[in-house]
Amino acid sequence: MGITFESLYCDIAGRTGKLTAGNKTIKTPALLPVINPHLQIVTPREIRSMGVEALITNAYIFSQSRQYRQRVLDEGLHKVLDFEGLIMTDSGSFQLSVYGEVSVTNTETLAFQRDIGSDIWVPLDIPTSPGSDHETAGRELAVTMQRLAEAKKVFGKDAPIAGPVQGGIFTDLREQAGREVTDLGFTFCPIGAVVPLMESYRYRDLVSVVMAVKQTLTPSACVHLFGAGHPSMFALAAAMGCDLFDSAAYALSAKEGRYLTTHGSFKIDELADLPCACSVCRSHTAEELRTAPDRERMLALHNLYVTVAEISRVRQAIFDGTLWELVDERCRGHPQLLASYRALLDKTASLEKSDRVSKRRFFYRGTESCARTEILRYQQMLPRLKLGASVLIAFDGGARGEYDDTLLFKPPFGPYPKELKETFPIGQSEIPEWDDAMVRTGCRGIRCLMESHPGSRFVISCRPIWEKIIREELGSVEVRYDEI
Amino acid sequence: MGITFESLYCDIAGRTGKLTAGNKTIKTPALLPVINPHLQIVTPREIRSMGVEALITNAYIFSQSRQYRQRVLDEGLHKVLDFEGLIMTDSGSFQLSVYGEVSVTNTETLAFQRDIGSDIWVPLDIPTSPGSDHETAGRELAVTMQRLAEAKKVFGKDAPIAGPVQGGIFTDLREQAGREVTDLGFTFCPIGAVVPLMESYRYRDLVSVVMAVKQTLTPSACVHLFGAGHPSMFALAAAMGCDLFDSAAYALSAKEGRYLTTHGSFKIDELADLPCACSVCRSHTAEELRTAPDRERMLALHNLYVTVAEISRVRQAIFDGTLWELVDERCRGHPQLLASYRALLDKTASLEKSDRVSKRRFFYRGTESCARTEILRYQQMLPRLKLGASVLIAFDGGARGEYDDTLLFKPPFGPYPKELKETFPIGQSEIPEWDDAMVRTGCRGIRCLMESHPGSRFVISCRPIWEKIIREELGSVEVRYDEI
Repeated sequence: MGITFESLYCDIAGRTGKLTAGNKTIKTPALLPVINPHLQIVTPREIRSMGVEALITNAYIFSQSRQYRQRVLDEGLHKVLDFEGLIMTDSGSFQLSVYGEVSVTNTETLAFQRDIGSDIWVPLDIPTSPGSDHETAGRELAVTMQRLAEAKKVFGKDAPIAGPVQGGIFTDLREQAGREVTDLGFTFCPIGAVVPLMESYRYRDLVSVVMAVKQTLTPSACVHLFGAGHPSMFALAAAMGCDLFDSAAYALSAKEGRYLTTHGSFKIDELADLPCACSVCRSHTAEELRTAPDRERMLALHNLYVTVAEISRVRQAIFDGTLWELVDERCRGHPQLLASYRALLDKTASLEKSDRVSKRRFFYRGTESCARTEILRYQQMLPRLKLGASVLIAFDGGARGEYDDTLLFKPPFGPYPKELKETFPIGQSEIPEWDDAMVRTGCRGIRCLMESHPGSRFVISCRPIWEKIIREELGSVEVRYDEI
Repeated sequence: MGITFESLYCDIAGRTGKLTAGNKTIKTPALLPVINPHLQIVTPREIRSMGVEALITNAYIFSQSRQYRQRVLDEGLHKVLDFEGLIMTDSGSFQLSVYGEVSVTNTETLAFQRDIGSDIWVPLDIPTSPGSDHETAGRELAVTMQRLAEAKKVFGKDAPIAGPVQGGIFTDLREQAGREVTDLGFTFCPIGAVVPLMESYRYRDLVSVVMAVKQTLTPSACVHLFGAGHPSMFALAAAMGCDLFDSAAYALSAKEGRYLTTHGSFKIDELADLPCACSVCRSHTAEELRTAPDRERMLALHNLYVTVAEISRVRQAIFDGTLWELVDERCRGHPQLLASYRALLDKTASLEKSDRVSKRRFFYRGTESCARTEILRYQQMLPRLKLGASVLIAFDGGARGEYDDTLLFKPPFGPYPKELKETFPIGQSEIPEWDDAMVRTGCRGIRCLMESHPGSRFVISCRPIWEKIIREELGSVEVRYDEI
């Protein structure tokens, strides 16, 4: 049995896929709502009816509960929670990170998770706080790795055990951890201890941690971003190749009177209107929701609806090949998300490898779009064009007999022969009126072409307004101004 | 009685408000779903239960209907439609634009609208096609104005009659029309004949038409953007000061199997997932929705939910003073919307006048944010600062005794004295790591200060990476590099 993951559509480093554990299969990316058996503000059955296929609960809470311990051992987790979908259990690591100790060992928690019929078990890994120094992070990582090795040894290589990746904020340790869990044969790899980064808006650090892990994990591993549950950052995480999210945010926020949206959270007291299509928001005014006797439950339902809807949007975007658009949309929602988006765009060279060849479309959304993978890939293809001794690049179209070849120009991609006019990305890209950033990026495409065809003479025909950028990017290239 | 409009919160040129016609009052911005009495795919009662306070129907259809004509005259529109909210009626102008003629006169349709108890009546104005030349547009506008004058004369100045603004795509005619409907005393002014612009993605033209009309309408007029019903453009239109929208898009799209979202429309056959929080999408899979026996109705419900939710989002954004953020988010959804957004940002000088002084926050969302009204207003305030003979502008903080004044620097705003540190926008703005565009914009703030204080000597202290931009914007200003 074990855990298997099959990837279907890919986009950037994200993918839609199927995760199978035991006899349960779910679509990914997926959100696993966190269920606390003691506080079922929304029941697992209700959650299932929203289209949620999997949830996560805490085995440690069950194991410590007089009310539940024996019952869950007798009846099994699925019956007790009244949920037929996939159930993953956490081990007590979270309690360890909060309280500093837990009264259970690694093999005890795994055996308990097995005995209650959990579909995915988590070892007792050590979540390293982002404030820890390199030595502490390394020492804690060594303990985690020991426990992962122990898990494999005691429960066998096919047990449905997750291999959490730790290492604090140190990319070398995260890379090492990724390598080691891969070597141990884990195919389901949560990235742990990132919640404090997200809580303090350190999204740039999140990008550096996740990208480091992904560098060394096998691409076929299913990656779970532990504790990520705010809908504003699913797109960013999915773009880096995270497949699973889980969160208690829907319930914790509701308890604090907070209303989640894809563009941030509001205190319910701040809302004059309910800016959402869900059934709670379309059947209450803001004032009614604020004063409702079941306000916490209504807020939790709203929070779940928007969270689950955003996961659907991520899946649809990957299916369409429009995930960059969604990342761009979400990451402009907070300046620190914008910073992380720009940091991600700096890693285009690594992301381009996994990105897919043809997409539904390329919509230009601003200067950040100039750094997208599709442009890099297009420009990397340019050296393969066969060109004659003289080449005209006509910004405004129109071939001329005196050149061996005439190429057209579409920013931000660059030059293209008319045979590529209908193919992706030239044919499926839409841009507003040319701006400086896109023309500059297109000129870099011309540079790729010039450098890879040193035997050809290049001439650019354009309107005078572009000459400054052309000179900055291409030096003394020959430019002519033609009537259009 | 008549029609009255009260504005509450403002943001950019948008506002939340209260529109009263007869004994009905609604919150604005508002969406009026179009009801065709013959095809009530979603009933007015259901629409009311979503939080919709007003709808629009077509008096011409009622007047021509054997089934409805006498009944609506006997029982009244509200009873026949089973809707207690505000009901506005169109006159037949739409049929005129489609079929070229209608079998009703201006005074006949207005009398009929009065007799059936409509809350807002529309005269038989002439919607000029965007393809019409200036002469045709002017001639048709003259007919419209004649009919508006006739409406006032026959039905009295307090009749609840709308004053549609026509003029095709010609800004001079739109301005003239705005002036004339204002002179006639209309306080409720639909902007007509813009549907073809929206259908062909000519959002830049839409911006130029709406901004021209708003130039000459009285600011206290309630502005209805006739036929605007796609949720992707409400924010843009609201930012220009449009208060009402109406649309059959929810129903027409559903008929064609189209699924509306705030980031564009999908054919239902293209969807692998339903990326929405509404009750339809959270209780169906994409496949279930595609094959549902009541698919058209389910799609119409979904389309309405997202449309109504977006209106709520617009109202909340105006309330918070975050409408620029929402415009930025929506307008990046299509390159032609981005073009219109950039065109709107070119009109900041005119928008700044109506914009409000203090807002919830200023989030930097990319280079377009540099052109926002808040920055212009901030920089226009700078000449009022009292400064001594020598002024240090310290990019990285730290006062120095040898200067009479030390100002800090926050891009994209510019220099600020420490007394403004906590006030809007300096204190409530959040930016990612400095980028070139924001530093350049901030330098323009320094220029305002230098030009308005010719007697002071200015010195900038910064890191060397910013010198290039400083030189480009400020010429030979004195720059020093300090240890930070």
